[in-house]
Amino acid sequence: MSADRTQYIVGVDLGGTNIVAGALTADGSRQFAMRSIPTNPGVGDEGVVDRIVGLVQSVILDTIEQANATHRDFIGIGVGAPGPLDRERGIVVIAPNLGWKNFPLRDRIHDRLNLPTTLDNDANCATFGEWWHGAARGGRDVVGLTIGTGIGGGLILNGTLFHGASDVAGEVGHTTIDLNGRHCKCGNYGCLEAYASAPAIAIRAREVLVREEGESSIPSMVNGDFDAITAQIVYDAAKDGDPVANEIVRDTARYLGVGVANLLNIFNPDIVVIAGGVTAAGDALFVPLRAEVRRRAFRPAVQAVRIVAGELSGTAGVVGAVASFKQQHLGGV
Amino acid sequence: MSADRTQYIVGVDLGGTNIVAGALTADGSRQFAMRSIPTNPGVGDEGVVDRIVGLVQSVILDTIEQANATHRDFIGIGVGAPGPLDRERGIVVIAPNLGWKNFPLRDRIHDRLNLPTTLDNDANCATFGEWWHGAARGGRDVVGLTIGTGIGGGLILNGTLFHGASDVAGEVGHTTIDLNGRHCKCGNYGCLEAYASAPAIAIRAREVLVREEGESSIPSMVNGDFDAITAQIVYDAAKDGDPVANEIVRDTARYLGVGVANLLNIFNPDIVVIAGGVTAAGDALFVPLRAEVRRRAFRPAVQAVRIVAGELSGTAGVVGAVASFKQQHLGGV
Repeated sequence: MSADRTQYIVGVDLGGTNIVAGALTADGSRQFAMRSIPTNPGVGDEGVVDRIVGLVQSVILDTIEQANATHRDFIGIGVGAPGPLDRERGIVVIAPNLGWKNFPLRDRIHDRLNLPTTLDNDANCATFGEWWHGAARGGRDVVGLTIGTGIGGGLILNGTLFHGASDVAGEVGHTTIDLNGRHCKCGNYGCLEAYASAPAIAIRAREVLVREEGESSIPSMVNGDFDAITAQIVYDAAKDGDPVANEIVRDTARYLGVGVANLLNIFNPDIVVIAGGVTAAGDALFVPLRAEVRRRAFRPAVQAVRIVAGELSGTAGVVGAVASFKQQHLGGV
Repeated sequence: MSADRTQYIVGVDLGGTNIVAGALTADGSRQFAMRSIPTNPGVGDEGVVDRIVGLVQSVILDTIEQANATHRDFIGIGVGAPGPLDRERGIVVIAPNLGWKNFPLRDRIHDRLNLPTTLDNDANCATFGEWWHGAARGGRDVVGLTIGTGIGGGLILNGTLFHGASDVAGEVGHTTIDLNGRHCKCGNYGCLEAYASAPAIAIRAREVLVREEGESSIPSMVNGDFDAITAQIVYDAAKDGDPVANEIVRDTARYLGVGVANLLNIFNPDIVVIAGGVTAAGDALFVPLRAEVRRRAFRPAVQAVRIVAGELSGTAGVVGAVASFKQQHLGGV
């Protein structure tokens, strides 16, 4: 086994709905065997570990075949998981969507697969992936927002993922933009997440439509069942020019703009990368979002930043989990 | 001149009202000739440079006498000035209180005193000073807030002052806490500064008192002239148990708590240091402030942080300007 053989790292992105995994060459230049399976959290914590282990094994076997590699060419596994977590001890502290409390995920995976394993926050990984091989390439100071069921975030400072004193750094979804505002799942009032996450987008659409304000095709899209309105339905309607849906997307852009402007004045990044379903709205989202940022942030901060959509749809977390493995285990990416 | 002679660095803290300066040994362990003169911005930009140069010369001469040093023991000058500024070019971009636009302050001082000179934001310097030799000693990731005419801030990440992509980082006073809230001097609505700066505290007191809500000694303290109410008068009345003044301080604590909670969820610092006149309120400020932070920030972030009052009243900016000189000119503090 000569030292110049290509080495591989497996990345795992564990979510409440799906587990995504794939292998990358250690330099990140090539991907192999990227795949996704349902998480099925109902099978319990050890059952989910079984599913992760099986998925990683299939990724390794298929990569060996596709890349003409051997088992010994695999140097580790990077895992992204919902936070809060304790990276040093490799523990998921609380993950409501998985029903976990203080679960030692890193060591469970390491024990089963006998490869060095690291753990990091899923939104940190998604940001790090976009920086390593996606829309935030070349950035020095980067903020990432991932908009889905919640709004996660990550910070990259001087090209290094920043974790803070207790691995909480980057929770930009839980910053107050309206101190007397909407109640958030985290217990706070007025969090960005309570306005601009996918469920919040659906709720705001419902609120407008039950008041029968404005013309919209959404009620007929859900056969009059307003509880069936989802963010995806709003995005689809907006694309078809639905005026209520477009208003909801514009408001979403404005809320996100407030949050992004705060990050510009605090952190003065050179790139802000936004990922998640809502970014499919394209200019309908990004034009009013950038306008709100211009209104609120300091000019030198606005001039220094590019605000872009993520490029690695579905795989940013896997790519970033590999990058996080490199940072934590090899000392740098 | 042997290499083991003690070296000295002069720190300058330029404000709209006063210029403070003093000399520190390069290791920061001893201070000499700390002093303050009025800025008198009316004398014009070159007039202010004259005042700075004269002050630095007097600091150097007195330090030579007090410390038995020589001119050659002085290795540089660190200057803190109101932002936004361009550190690399040594330029103050805009300083409304000084009436300056694109003024090359660093080179003007360097040309006159022939010592290496660096420029940094005044609030950055105040935070860095508290970290180097004040209340934030030992912190790794530190956020500083300086509450005066405005609310400035600074970020220390991994023990290094963080500037961002265009030297704007740390402007925590200009983060939105109420997106439809009070108009701020920066043009934005709902900035923390519009609620918790000294002028904002005075305005809120006036608003309560003109409605004749609650008993208060403040109207008699200003002989009925509500325009004469200042933040200092509110602090003094609060100390004497004035109920309206105490309500204003509690509200200030709440607003600051929202801003600090946002910083905890974004940066997860180990120390937040708050400086400025309002901190003289002591527990009357810090107890409700910490309670608001606990209500809003993630528990692991709250558990990891100490929220403390600044210790270097009046001199943090000078001490931090010296530390910034070391970081920029010598590569580390």
